[in-house]
Amino acid sequence: MKKNSPDEWFPIGTIRTPFKESDGTPIQPCKAHGVRGRVILEPEYTDALQDLDGFDRIWLLYRFHRSGKPSSLVTPYLDTTPRGLFSTRAPNRFNPIGLSVVRLVKITETGFEIEEVDMLDETPLLDIKPYIPAFDSYPDSQCGWLKSRDIANEAGMADNRFEDR
Amino acid sequence: MKKNSPDEWFPIGTIRTPFKESDGTPIQPCKAHGVRGRVILEPEYTDALQDLDGFDRIWLLYRFHRSGKPSSLVTPYLDTTPRGLFSTRAPNRFNPIGLSVVRLVKITETGFEIEEVDMLDETPLLDIKPYIPAFDSYPDSQCGWLKSRDIANEAGMADNRFEDR
Repeated sequence: MKKNSPDEWFPIGTIRTPFKESDGTPIQPCKAHGVRGRVILEPEYTDALQDLDGFDRIWLLYRFHRSGKPSSLVTPYLDTTPRGLFSTRAPNRFNPIGLSVVRLVKITETGFEIEEVDMLDETPLLDIKPYIPAFDSYPDSQCGWLKSRDIANEAGMADNRFEDR
Repeated sequence: MKKNSPDEWFPIGTIRTPFKESDGTPIQPCKAHGVRGRVILEPEYTDALQDLDGFDRIWLLYRFHRSGKPSSLVTPYLDTTPRGLFSTRAPNRFNPIGLSVVRLVKITETGFEIEEVDMLDETPLLDIKPYIPAFDSYPDSQCGWLKSRDIANEAGMADNRFEDR
C-alpha cells in the first residue's frame, strides 16, 4: 500500500464514464440521470469497500485531471457573469479536487458500478465516502448568486471553457 | 500563486477552531451547533471569495493533518463493529482529504468566520466550494449500516482512536 505522504495524492482507482471531452459532459450528477459509469479500484483497496453496498449514494473525490490553470474569477456554466472561484463548482481550482455525489448501483470484483456520473473518462479517484443525509443534506440552504434560479430545470451540459489547452 | 502541480496539494489557508485534540471534537458539523471557527486564507486567494457571501453553507475540503495510517477496516465512532473504510467518514484515509459542510457566518478581510466546525485547530485548507442543495442534498438517501439509527440524537464527540501516534 502506498505510503501516505502529507503532500502528495495518488489515484486509488479510475473512474470510467462515457465522456471523452468536456463538451457535452453533464456539469453535475443531477444533470446525468441514468448515465452509467464504473470505478475500477487498485486491487489493494477493494477490501475497504466492505459495508458500502447498503448506501444509495456515495461521494467521489477525484482529481480534475484535464482542467486548466485556476483564476480567482471564473464565468461558471450557470451564469454569464464572472464569479469568485470559491462561489462556483468550476473545475479549475487551486487544488483541483472534484467532488460529486453519485448513485451506487452495484459492488463488483474490481470496484463498483455507478449512475449519474459527471466526470470525464479516466478520471483519477482519490477517495470514496458514504453519503449520509444527517451529515450532508441541507435542502433549504440558501445559495447566493444561484438563489432565484430554477437549477433543476436548466440545461446542464459543459463546454470546453475550463480545459487545459 | 503556487503552481498547480498534478501530484501535490498545498494549503490555501488554515482553519482555526477551538479543538486542540481529537478527544472531544465533534465528529461532524451537525454535532457542533453554535461552535465558531474561522478560516485565514493566504492573501493571494482572498479575491476568489467574491460572491460567496450569499451562501448559507460551504464545503471545506482539507487535509486530515493529524490522522494516522489508513487501514481497510476501521471501527467508526458511530459503531462498535469494524467497517470498510469507504463506508465510513473516519479520518485515516488513503488520501487524507476531509470534507465538511459548515455554516458561513461572515466574510472578513483575511478569510471568513464559520460555525459548526468539526476540525482540529490549524487544519490545512485545500478548497472551498459552495453548498448547492440542487447538487448536494439527498435527504432520503439510504445509508447502509447507519440505516436504522437515529444519528441526529446520538452523541457525536470523537476520541483519539484515529490519531497519528
